[in-house]
Amino acid sequence: MSHEDVSAAAEMRWNGWGDPNRVSGLPFAVRALLPAILGRVRRPAAAPGIDEVEVAPSLLTEADQATLREVVGAEDVDLSAGARLRHAGGRSTPDLLERRGHRQETPDGIVLPASHDEVAEVLRLASERRIAVVPFGGGTSVVGGVDPERGPHHAVISLDLRRLTGLVSFDSVSGEAVLRAGTRGPEAERLLSERGFELGHYPQSFRYATIGGFAAARSSGQNSAGYGRFDTMVTGLRVATPTGELDLGRAPGSAAGPDLVRLFLGSEGVFGVITEVRVRVHPVPAERIVESWSFPDFVTGAEALRRTVQSGAGPTVIRLSDEVETGVSLAQVGRIGKALSKGASVVAVFEGEDAETRRVRTAGFLSAAGGTSTGRTGAQDWLDTRFDGPYLRDALLDVGVFCETLETATTWANLQRLRQAVADALRTGFAQDDAKSFVMCHVSHVYPTGASLYFTVLAGIRGDQLAVWDRVKHRVGDAIMAAGGTITHHHAIGRDHAPWLEDEIGETGLRILRAVKAELDPAGVLNPGALIPVPSGSGT
Amino acid sequence: MSHEDVSAAAEMRWNGWGDPNRVSGLPFAVRALLPAILGRVRRPAAAPGIDEVEVAPSLLTEADQATLREVVGAEDVDLSAGARLRHAGGRSTPDLLERRGHRQETPDGIVLPASHDEVAEVLRLASERRIAVVPFGGGTSVVGGVDPERGPHHAVISLDLRRLTGLVSFDSVSGEAVLRAGTRGPEAERLLSERGFELGHYPQSFRYATIGGFAAARSSGQNSAGYGRFDTMVTGLRVATPTGELDLGRAPGSAAGPDLVRLFLGSEGVFGVITEVRVRVHPVPAERIVESWSFPDFVTGAEALRRTVQSGAGPTVIRLSDEVETGVSLAQVGRIGKALSKGASVVAVFEGEDAETRRVRTAGFLSAAGGTSTGRTGAQDWLDTRFDGPYLRDALLDVGVFCETLETATTWANLQRLRQAVADALRTGFAQDDAKSFVMCHVSHVYPTGASLYFTVLAGIRGDQLAVWDRVKHRVGDAIMAAGGTITHHHAIGRDHAPWLEDEIGETGLRILRAVKAELDPAGVLNPGALIPVPSGSGT
Repeated sequence: MSHEDVSAAAEMRWNGWGDPNRVSGLPFAVRALLPAILGRVRRPAAAPGIDEVEVAPSLLTEADQATLREVVGAEDVDLSAGARLRHAGGRSTPDLLERRGHRQETPDGIVLPASHDEVAEVLRLASERRIAVVPFGGGTSVVGGVDPERGPHHAVISLDLRRLTGLVSFDSVSGEAVLRAGTRGPEAERLLSERGFELGHYPQSFRYATIGGFAAARSSGQNSAGYGRFDTMVTGLRVATPTGELDLGRAPGSAAGPDLVRLFLGSEGVFGVITEVRVRVHPVPAERIVESWSFPDFVTGAEALRRTVQSGAGPTVIRLSDEVETGVSLAQVGRIGKALSKGASVVAVFEGEDAETRRVRTAGFLSAAGGTSTGRTGAQDWLDTRFDGPYLRDALLDVGVFCETLETATTWANLQRLRQAVADALRTGFAQDDAKSFVMCHVSHVYPTGASLYFTVLAGIRGDQLAVWDRVKHRVGDAIMAAGGTITHHHAIGRDHAPWLEDEIGETGLRILRAVKAELDPAGVLNPGALIPVPSGSGT
Repeated sequence: MSHEDVSAAAEMRWNGWGDPNRVSGLPFAVRALLPAILGRVRRPAAAPGIDEVEVAPSLLTEADQATLREVVGAEDVDLSAGARLRHAGGRSTPDLLERRGHRQETPDGIVLPASHDEVAEVLRLASERRIAVVPFGGGTSVVGGVDPERGPHHAVISLDLRRLTGLVSFDSVSGEAVLRAGTRGPEAERLLSERGFELGHYPQSFRYATIGGFAAARSSGQNSAGYGRFDTMVTGLRVATPTGELDLGRAPGSAAGPDLVRLFLGSEGVFGVITEVRVRVHPVPAERIVESWSFPDFVTGAEALRRTVQSGAGPTVIRLSDEVETGVSLAQVGRIGKALSKGASVVAVFEGEDAETRRVRTAGFLSAAGGTSTGRTGAQDWLDTRFDGPYLRDALLDVGVFCETLETATTWANLQRLRQAVADALRTGFAQDDAKSFVMCHVSHVYPTGASLYFTVLAGIRGDQLAVWDRVKHRVGDAIMAAGGTITHHHAIGRDHAPWLEDEIGETGLRILRAVKAELDPAGVLNPGALIPVPSGSGT
């Protein structure tokens, strides 16, 4: 059996994170602490209910609607205000702030195909009729990846893949499974677990995000040290485009030209719609061991992580929280406000038959590098609450405290410089808008050559939260690029990061993406404005 | 110090493999055995010397020559017959048979740029003047990747990168090195070894092939089980194209759109010329342990390899020879003709501080799966002679015996079916042309989900060797695709495999490659005919 809860998740709260039935208040100690750190902020007006939001009439013509209904069936083209609001955006903090408005932009309809062929047919017809199509999986994008943007077209539909679920095939000998793109994390793991296997991909969005979304956005899960980022798990893809289909990935290793699977991983629905994903799976690990460590400071801890991963010691999870995050124990959401810890804490998890051997080897590197084992509790707390961070954000937003995350990655040699640059840009950015901020950082994904940096920031913004964050986010993006980081390690580009893609891959790189898009999606209906920045000067 | 010989290799024999000063005759026992297995074949006429071959006049105009000399310097545009013959092709068996002709096709000149900027300028001017450009590294292609094809252009130059060598930068903390593309294997390892590191990429072409060639052709080395295929070692690329440059790979992990590094790995010089490669390196392993194993048969051995690699036991090298290859000990070239071994033999190598731990774990899986350790000798013999196979081929061709290799890969579940299909296609293909053949197979690259299959075939062809092989090769290519394999695991597409690329990636996949090429190389001067098949009906 899987180590994780793989029961099906309920439909997500329409204007916040996760289970709508879960009450997620702030611990008393946090509420008491916040004004001291961030100054007093105004509690926002109560958010409108889904029935209280004004939604513009759908711009799909009668003929559009009839055409789409012919492909997927009458009941699977949904023009209701409720469905349209549920597809109005992802789950970034700006998304959630937008969801508090009394008028909201939404797609003009939701289309729910049930097969690869129906997806292909919808794309073909949408191209013919000039309807923008935004592929929609779990709706957990935090970069504006599912915003209902029409581009130059007369209407936009959200192509929800929730009917495209389940296992297409399973090969226990080779350790491969083909899953339909709309399968959510828990459902995928449940199907595999029934066969004694797991995928082992646990990003924070696990309970809601889909297999296709993981692929389209180049997701990276919390077990990436052990099982790799989602990129490395994918051995094949089936993709529908407006002008033809692809069935990629013939062999575990190949030199038959460029690996086109990698061109669709991270393509964010602008080249085509991923309908099936072949993934490498492994037997459910028999053992799981957890251990927490304490380091004098972040720099020492990072050096310990570097030595551990470069040695191939083999932890499944290894994370390092900086002094601030360790102090408030936000790394262990459940313990927030409890005893303030000192230094920088590390959580390590080891899975597999040889978990204990790998724990011992890792412990050797960590203690040689100045770490002290602090037992199981901290690491177990983290495991137990690791999908809960977004609930806490909802609770903070409810009391008027701004809370958002962002992430980047770089080489080990450049890690401290990048961390400093981002932290400085966040603090001075908020300060310029007269807001106090509280910045935490952790390393959650490690590679032989470098690591990711994940920042959580709380801010006491008295003015327009959206406007202030927009300014700060731009400042931070520029700082990341100037300090040699990537604009995103695992959140993808979407619309929010599109302004930096040219810094990331250059003008020639952008030309390549535009050429591929023009070839596959000549009408430009697929997710306009996502990934590929709209050339400046052209309106949308 | 590196475990390998990293002294600089002499310039390769112009019409065969390797060091021209090395005499490589056939062991007496082999010469005695061959007629019994393959029938009598005629010893070919002596091959002409390089001065005896007729070469057509260069088609570069005076103006072309002056323009190119202005970019790279007068002495680095070489129109001599000798230089042109040395760039007439790669090192497949058909190439070597072609090299025996008294008239040969060659490029119209060799251009030797000394910098990224000179490469970029040559590409720009060649586009303007309509001169085809074939990038040339070590010239070790076995798939026609460096053939001097003019396409629709009036002349073709070979762009030899031998002046583009050395280390651009080195980061011992992150374990990354940037190498210029023309750096050969031994020179790269020597530069790293001076700093205590190694790349650990040892394909059979190691002593002659270049870093840029490894990247452009998606090479896989003998240590791939331990250090990965070359694909996975590359963390960044610098590329010159006729219309702009690329500097790709900002971070060890990223979700900033598709990973465009992967679009240039395997691009075989048709999109641009790779000028610098950033690679992951590791400290030179302190320990190396070798062990040989024997299995009752190939099927049992393959199952043992599967269990070993899926368990993550961690051999650096693990190879399995089938019964035929084991029998003639061709797996250990130096021992050919010595005692005939039974069953299927496995060679395993373990490197690193924990080599012994990993040997013990691997041994556990191999013996549980029916294997018997046969000590160090066989594995050590393989290590000592592992770059020598091509010398043996030259010796066979000299006595009139046809010898060639080909390779593919598939999932573990499909491995035996594919092996049978390829072996059958080889045997029946040669038989149709009234030639006896001798087919050997080994697994040399393993993945959690599957493995490669490498075939060596000897044939006693009485007629036109090139014509017969062309028919057999087509039959085998079709059989590989029908049986679910990839057309090439690590030899690349070049011109020889281009007919199967559409089977591999589909018509939509081909359209993507053509769109990228049209964007970056609108004049179509880069390596015409390689990788991307010329649409049927259009002449070249």
